[in-house]
Amino acid sequence: MLNEDRIIDAFKTAFSVQGGIGDDAAVIAIDEKKSMVITKDLLVEDVHFRRRYYSPEELAHKSLHVNLSDIAAMGAVPAHVFLGISLPKSEGEYATAFTKHFIDTCKNYNVVVMGGDTTSSKAGMFISVTMMGYADNAQIKLRTTANIDDVICVAGDIGHAHIGLLALESDRSGFAKYEQSAKKPMARIAEGAWFGGRPDVTAMMDLSDGLYVDVQKLARASSVTADIYVDEISISDDFRNACAVLDVDPIKVKLEGGEDYGLLITVHKAAYADLARDFQQKFGYALQPVGSFAAHGNDNLSYVRVHSTVSGNAVTDIKPFSHF
Amino acid sequence: MLNEDRIIDAFKTAFSVQGGIGDDAAVIAIDEKKSMVITKDLLVEDVHFRRRYYSPEELAHKSLHVNLSDIAAMGAVPAHVFLGISLPKSEGEYATAFTKHFIDTCKNYNVVVMGGDTTSSKAGMFISVTMMGYADNAQIKLRTTANIDDVICVAGDIGHAHIGLLALESDRSGFAKYEQSAKKPMARIAEGAWFGGRPDVTAMMDLSDGLYVDVQKLARASSVTADIYVDEISISDDFRNACAVLDVDPIKVKLEGGEDYGLLITVHKAAYADLARDFQQKFGYALQPVGSFAAHGNDNLSYVRVHSTVSGNAVTDIKPFSHF
Repeated sequence: MLNEDRIIDAFKTAFSVQGGIGDDAAVIAIDEKKSMVITKDLLVEDVHFRRRYYSPEELAHKSLHVNLSDIAAMGAVPAHVFLGISLPKSEGEYATAFTKHFIDTCKNYNVVVMGGDTTSSKAGMFISVTMMGYADNAQIKLRTTANIDDVICVAGDIGHAHIGLLALESDRSGFAKYEQSAKKPMARIAEGAWFGGRPDVTAMMDLSDGLYVDVQKLARASSVTADIYVDEISISDDFRNACAVLDVDPIKVKLEGGEDYGLLITVHKAAYADLARDFQQKFGYALQPVGSFAAHGNDNLSYVRVHSTVSGNAVTDIKPFSHF
Repeated sequence: MLNEDRIIDAFKTAFSVQGGIGDDAAVIAIDEKKSMVITKDLLVEDVHFRRRYYSPEELAHKSLHVNLSDIAAMGAVPAHVFLGISLPKSEGEYATAFTKHFIDTCKNYNVVVMGGDTTSSKAGMFISVTMMGYADNAQIKLRTTANIDDVICVAGDIGHAHIGLLALESDRSGFAKYEQSAKKPMARIAEGAWFGGRPDVTAMMDLSDGLYVDVQKLARASSVTADIYVDEISISDDFRNACAVLDVDPIKVKLEGGEDYGLLITVHKAAYADLARDFQQKFGYALQPVGSFAAHGNDNLSYVRVHSTVSGNAVTDIKPFSHF
């Protein structure tokens, strides 16, 4: 077992938390109507980013958007942020540019920097952001509340950030659009709040670890089994070409690639058509259906079944991408 | 200017925050009577601790107590915590022991682990703790509210942690008591809440950077000048001997040594005697008066004047200790 999983399991066993440790954000009741949601994400140099190809502006952007995405995925509106940053003494210029863009981005989203901690480091840069948001209790969406027969949908691109990362890591040019997806993901803040206001949306989380792994987490949290229908996932010619140049299977990238920060939602089967129509009208792009849920049987421990008529191999050998 | 100061200054200029960025914790109003206070502290390997002489239990203890101390210094009661931890993949045993003691310590203080983030690191261990507490608004103590003529007092030892650190860094034995002060500081949680309930306590913060620097921060935040009377600071024979063995000036250590995590409070001159008596009765040890405040003139930019009849040099050459 990874250290990460061991630590989280120990906390889950020790404490009972509303929503549960392991949701996108923790929920603290403010009063009978309103709650605060709180998330905390780490960005570690050479684990989550490389300074070689991340400008200070891009790093400030990403460190905020991965947290904004968690707040959005709860159906909440972001409000406060605390920054912990540890960086080598020599990096004064990087620090100044990072801070300026961090402030500008916060102001764009009406998020107030309330405090934090700054220290030097001996090796590498380390960023820890804690963000708080607020939501009416009726708006809060969790991972634990999906039902059998619900439709699973994604708002946002799938696999784009992974293509960008592969290009950045191999110093390939011609992938600017995908590199932007990797370095400057846009949290779906308006979409999250909108889904929060739709009672027919039964569960929500953000897409950070990749479609397969994140659907699996949602299915496990809700004690159902997910069926992913690969053939339904749209693959553009541009995406297919990019995969060909980088010599990767587009379906594997769609299933395994992480860091896209779209929203994964589940919706009552009967309400799906209305939701998809309203979403398209409101946001100008389509919700992507990717599957549905079935009852979870003891015979199926993985919580996910992947179905495809075109790609046999890709779907039986999932290797979730977990950083460098 | 240090990166740290530059980042904090930029945030202070950009955002207006109750209590102010730079207090021990930020204050968020919950309702008309109650507020949440929030603090975030980083512990970076080989900047704040070394694994060579910090057991996982001691590190878990310290990472919580430096945050508990911030909550206490606001007059608040701790409630929730989020842990961010980044550590090398090879450190599974260290992670397990750290996590176990982190949970036990939280349970001791009725603090609930609500979430966080765990990742691997390429080099070194990095710990980021965010802690929340609650206080009635009338109980909250800030740094900005000290007055001219207030008495400055310390609850807790001064300089002990620095002696311990010097012993640990030089592998000297015979300093167990002081090493405990460095590795397992005890946040003054009960004292903080008690001071919160005393209206005659005008300001409070915790002692983390050393007496001189912390008094200076408090004086600057309150726009007054502090007079520290070195001769009034009690120095035990044991402390004097320890300093002699380590070849350091006891008065310099009292003024400059950090990481003690006592509480620095200020109290109306007329109320001091009663407060000191009640404190002694309640906690079984004495409040230490160390000075008082005068009006801040433009001629004195340092915000602190140190007075001594016995030690001339020590008090004119302050070099605050700032980690390794």
